[in-house]
Amino acid sequence: MATQKLLLLPGDGIGPEVMAEVKRLIGWLNGKGLASFETEEGLVGGSAYDAHGASISEADMDKAKAADAIIFGAVGGPKWDGVPYEVRPEAGLLRLRKDLGLFANLRPAVCYPALADASSLKREIVEGLDIMIVRELTGGVYFGEPKTITDLGNGQKRAVDTQVYDTYEIERIARVAFDLARKRRNKVTSMEKRNVMKSGVLWNEVVTAVHAREYKDVTLEHQLADSGGMNLVKYPKMFDVIVTDNLFGDMLSDIAAMLTGSLGMLPSASLGEVDAKTHKRRALYEPVHGSAPDIAGKGLANPIAMLTSFGMALRYSFDMGALADKLDAAIAAVLASGLRTADIKAEGSTPVSTTQMGEAIIKEL
Amino acid sequence: MATQKLLLLPGDGIGPEVMAEVKRLIGWLNGKGLASFETEEGLVGGSAYDAHGASISEADMDKAKAADAIIFGAVGGPKWDGVPYEVRPEAGLLRLRKDLGLFANLRPAVCYPALADASSLKREIVEGLDIMIVRELTGGVYFGEPKTITDLGNGQKRAVDTQVYDTYEIERIARVAFDLARKRRNKVTSMEKRNVMKSGVLWNEVVTAVHAREYKDVTLEHQLADSGGMNLVKYPKMFDVIVTDNLFGDMLSDIAAMLTGSLGMLPSASLGEVDAKTHKRRALYEPVHGSAPDIAGKGLANPIAMLTSFGMALRYSFDMGALADKLDAAIAAVLASGLRTADIKAEGSTPVSTTQMGEAIIKEL
Ligand SMILES: CC(C)[C@H](C(=O)O)[C@@H](O)C(=O)O
Ligand SMILES: CC(C)[C@H](C(=O)O)[C@@H](O)C(=O)O
Repeated sequence: MATQKLLLLPGDGIGPEVMAEVKRLIGWLNGKGLASFETEEGLVGGSAYDAHGASISEADMDKAKAADAIIFGAVGGPKWDGVPYEVRPEAGLLRLRKDLGLFANLRPAVCYPALADASSLKREIVEGLDIMIVRELTGGVYFGEPKTITDLGNGQKRAVDTQVYDTYEIERIARVAFDLARKRRNKVTSMEKRNVMKSGVLWNEVVTAVHAREYKDVTLEHQLADSGGMNLVKYPKMFDVIVTDNLFGDMLSDIAAMLTGSLGMLPSASLGEVDAKTHKRRALYEPVHGSAPDIAGKGLANPIAMLTSFGMALRYSFDMGALADKLDAAIAAVLASGLRTADIKAEGSTPVSTTQMGEAIIKEL
Repeated sequence: MATQKLLLLPGDGIGPEVMAEVKRLIGWLNGKGLASFETEEGLVGGSAYDAHGASISEADMDKAKAADAIIFGAVGGPKWDGVPYEVRPEAGLLRLRKDLGLFANLRPAVCYPALADASSLKREIVEGLDIMIVRELTGGVYFGEPKTITDLGNGQKRAVDTQVYDTYEIERIARVAFDLARKRRNKVTSMEKRNVMKSGVLWNEVVTAVHAREYKDVTLEHQLADSGGMNLVKYPKMFDVIVTDNLFGDMLSDIAAMLTGSLGMLPSASLGEVDAKTHKRRALYEPVHGSAPDIAGKGLANPIAMLTSFGMALRYSFDMGALADKLDAAIAAVLASGLRTADIKAEGSTPVSTTQMGEAIIKEL
């Protein structure tokens, strides 16, 4: 069995706690001979800033480039509210995305039947929900230049951010969305604000062209991002795959995740382009939830989103779909048996800690 | 009684139908001697484009500048999907906002008790909900330059939009939010993405400073716009007044409106600065819902959002709060009596047309 190199970046807040459960799982898989993962660890976010004044060190960036996949916890917290913009915790994550070319962010929003009642939406609206949000991750207003604050004198400052998209960036993310749709329910909804933004006009034009040229078998629909957001709240089951830009994707994927009632369960994958020679792609896997500093260090965090993110790594980076399926089944079984971390507790359920949840899932495996 | 000049801009889709009910109400108010409104009418959006190739004519812009308030229906529809960007229906609305300096967009998201079950959210989450979203309306990515699509050759184009905010723009919208909060539950939540956008950094800094200088009695909270969106879906009642930029406000106010189950009921006001001499401010009132081309011309549209928008005009432009209260009470009574347009129909309710709903409300008055 070929050895696979993983870089683990636990980050801040609950990151280290949930990462501990991934390490437990990796240890178990290696021990059983089901996989051969070699792991390294690095610092990112506030913990990297505390250690060496940058939100990720050059040495850790090098490790990230050399890894077959990166498993990422979460970054940020009030402790670093005052640090300069350039070295704020999030900068480490944004640099990883940009420098590794991880342009395709896949965020499934799935409603676990056992958790449907945890949603603020009515059960019938979200039960069985299964949406895939494909968010462009290395372009748009996140990285466009200029991105500045200028002092204009007289107590006035001017802040500028720039949303930029080139044709090729839209083409490649559209292809990711259409390819995924073919393996799902064959429908893509593209969202932008073409009625207000030139990037929305180009987005709409390019997605339409890619569809017409290469994916006529897939149903394509366009929605304005604001009414798309409304539809997400009102008729979420109308969607299969949603493809959208970096900023709209940030908002819409969080809202979609919240609808499901399963925020503590949801993974994400950030993928680069497939290398023509090696057929490999760079990839980073992280839970959708953040660093949750308010509950950090208390054993309250739900490790499932982190574990399902690792499951996505098995699927997308290591072609171990069968193992990923088993992991999903083990998680479902543990939930069905009534074990719950605090975020998903329900009447009659058995409260467990982060560690107990991780152990139970491995036991089930 | 001083005569008040209104410009009515019905626009496209269901705009003319719902505007007809405002005209009925104005006629009734004038007839009873309760008000003295003088109305003019103009074209905006696709209907203006069809008439004279622009989304609003110079003559109608002049009327808008001369009016004491503008009552606006809705613009847009698939009929004009192919028209050039510069003259698309929305351009007329955006020009009105910008040229009249209507920087403060007030969007109440209120859950009408009679309609709580129409929400996709659980009744207990939305019942009694009463949020005021204060959206900056003349800045940000909507109007920043450059806003271009450039041909790069080789089949590549580059689209650019620019998000720009100056200190004074943030200061004045923050004041609107704090002033409103003082008359409500005394809490303001400011939303931006300071972890990614320089405009978010400045936004946060300026709102914080205005608060510290002038509004220490009001509670101020900051949320990142993505987690703010999550909270809106999960814990909407944590909010009183939300203040945010043009694009986040577009998304978040639509989502908030959808939560209430009362989209067909919700008004908005867009206000300019108070003139130091006349103490007047320019103002445009429009329903939150759009032009709904799919149901246009069928008598299916709910006129209540348009009528409550007119009610906001009574309140904010004409100091006729008592009359606005009566209008609200009449609407509540008609709903309680079980009359419903199609969008808010419920078991056991009496289906009525746009006109019948308008007539019933006047009868109740
Ligand atoms: C942490 C932050 C920079 C990040 C983003 O805005 O992309 C997060 O919200 C996310 O969605 O991954
Ligand atoms: C019609 C459109 C230009 C407009 C906007 O994006 O502001 C609308 O969505 C709104 O919210 O008033």
